[in-house]
Amino acid sequence: MKALVYFGARDLRYVDVDTPRPKKGEVLVKPRAVSICGSDLSGFKGTSKFRVPPLIMGHEFSGEIAELGEGVKNLSIGQKVGVVTNLFCGKCPDCKRNLQNICDNRYIIGTTMMAGSYNGAMADFVPVPAEKIVPLPEHVSFAEAALAEPLSISLRAVKHAGNIKGKTTAVFGAGPIGLLAIKCLKMFGAKEIIAIDIIEKRLDMAKKCGATAVINSNDDVLKFTRDLTCGEGLDFVLDAVGIEATINKGIEIVRNGGNIIWIGLSAKQINMEYFTSVCKEINIKSSYMYTTEMNEALDLISSGKIIVKDIITNSYPMSKGPEIFAKLAGNQAEDVKVILTND
Amino acid sequence: MKALVYFGARDLRYVDVDTPRPKKGEVLVKPRAVSICGSDLSGFKGTSKFRVPPLIMGHEFSGEIAELGEGVKNLSIGQKVGVVTNLFCGKCPDCKRNLQNICDNRYIIGTTMMAGSYNGAMADFVPVPAEKIVPLPEHVSFAEAALAEPLSISLRAVKHAGNIKGKTTAVFGAGPIGLLAIKCLKMFGAKEIIAIDIIEKRLDMAKKCGATAVINSNDDVLKFTRDLTCGEGLDFVLDAVGIEATINKGIEIVRNGGNIIWIGLSAKQINMEYFTSVCKEINIKSSYMYTTEMNEALDLISSGKIIVKDIITNSYPMSKGPEIFAKLAGNQAEDVKVILTND
Repeated sequence: MKALVYFGARDLRYVDVDTPRPKKGEVLVKPRAVSICGSDLSGFKGTSKFRVPPLIMGHEFSGEIAELGEGVKNLSIGQKVGVVTNLFCGKCPDCKRNLQNICDNRYIIGTTMMAGSYNGAMADFVPVPAEKIVPLPEHVSFAEAALAEPLSISLRAVKHAGNIKGKTTAVFGAGPIGLLAIKCLKMFGAKEIIAIDIIEKRLDMAKKCGATAVINSNDDVLKFTRDLTCGEGLDFVLDAVGIEATINKGIEIVRNGGNIIWIGLSAKQINMEYFTSVCKEINIKSSYMYTTEMNEALDLISSGKIIVKDIITNSYPMSKGPEIFAKLAGNQAEDVKVILTND
Repeated sequence: MKALVYFGARDLRYVDVDTPRPKKGEVLVKPRAVSICGSDLSGFKGTSKFRVPPLIMGHEFSGEIAELGEGVKNLSIGQKVGVVTNLFCGKCPDCKRNLQNICDNRYIIGTTMMAGSYNGAMADFVPVPAEKIVPLPEHVSFAEAALAEPLSISLRAVKHAGNIKGKTTAVFGAGPIGLLAIKCLKMFGAKEIIAIDIIEKRLDMAKKCGATAVINSNDDVLKFTRDLTCGEGLDFVLDAVGIEATINKGIEIVRNGGNIIWIGLSAKQINMEYFTSVCKEINIKSSYMYTTEMNEALDLISSGKIIVKDIITNSYPMSKGPEIFAKLAGNQAEDVKVILTND
């Protein structure tokens, strides 16, 4: 089969590889739409420890069942499906606490975790355990279903904030995760949703996604947010960037006793304004991946409660992968969400 | 009257000052026991922005009522009392959310807050609003009652962790706040309470206060805590130090999805292991001062549910203040809690 194989930093090739076969309890999925994640781009640049070459990337995808492994029932060839890509162990203390997202023994399709690598969906076929398959309704497109994974990440992060109905909120980073978080904040009834980004084009898209106000990071974000909250500061700040500038600005603009969710993973270490965050008695929750949110996200997309297709800015055949990755890695700003298709 | 006046970095003098008079609704308290707080020492060293000279420090104290201001009822001269030292405004959004601890308009007796300075209890007399007075039972000593304030700080921090019954916990810093937190963790039924400090003498005291295990920060804290938790990591870590080494070690030793409370205020900025904390989906709560916990702490001391007197290592007359501060600032390790008395 053909696959986009990541051989090392900035070395992605569309080549022939052995076609995988489904083992007992698995199915073979033909990916029809694979969404490129920011973490795939980090992998491409050689800056992610979660992408060890050689690896076929791709963990945001949907497709059709191409083959059934031994013992698989209730699924059929040709069926349109989404895939829950977290293959957790189900036995460790984390899994037993319903924190399958941080199970140390997990594989994630298309990545390299502590347990090892698992080839992903940027290929003609990918083997998937049958229990990870979610049948899709006909009216949901492959591209939309591929976005269930990033939506699940944003959904979990926003859920961590508790009840945000009527609350004043801000989101750093109007990339896919930030934009989908804005959609979730809107769905949950936030009163103010302020999008903060350095790129005007993304701020425009944030408005279309439900942001009630937008501001460029280069402007006076503190004054802007204070003015919008009678001088008080925001109830809730979500950071979908994760660099020093946004983390510390978040600590500054949240109100005393407010809530911050960290989800962006750009920096390894951050020199944070510790003293201020303690004296303001801020609550900080991290959010990582998803547990039940992947199924919830597919439901939200299927039911039309959250529209995701408007953040897709381009779509290309899988064979164009190498040049598309090179282009996105050079200038992420141009596109928001790019889909690779397999005919 | 005589007072210990802080005139600037390492310049504390026991001098004559005007005796304050109680205004309408206030009482004049004669402090009988004032406990020296770590923040007073920071003030003495000139490193605290919350102590602007000239200032009479002292916010952990008890005493007797010496004079009643106009309109004060239900209190009497000679009465033994504790004092709630947070003079919050009661009107701002923070106060209305029951976050009087972070009210921007508050005065704290013996400190300099945003609203201004308020002379404290290291003096013959201190004026106090009558509603901040808590009558004390006869069997509680002045010195014990003075420790209600630091106990309230530790109590609030531990309460932030939620239900810790049966949980594995660790406390960084076996100074007064850490030791009192250990007592609270014990009272709330923590299964393991691991004290971590660099000073052996303090670790010995931690054991007496209820720590189930102790380890020196210079030893292999990660291995020690993993061994005690079947390899998993701790459910809950409280940091009563607040320096880079402890903050990052806390992120390392807490379990995936675990809870961390930041309460120590040693560092202004901290270069923290951000990526790790997000990938472990850690929850971080800051804890600052107290709201209802000051009254709760007085109740815990009065009822004998928490014994505080065992962390008092020395007691001196107020007049010795200058030399005692100089000694403590030179070597904090020698003492845990020092009381200044007024006869």
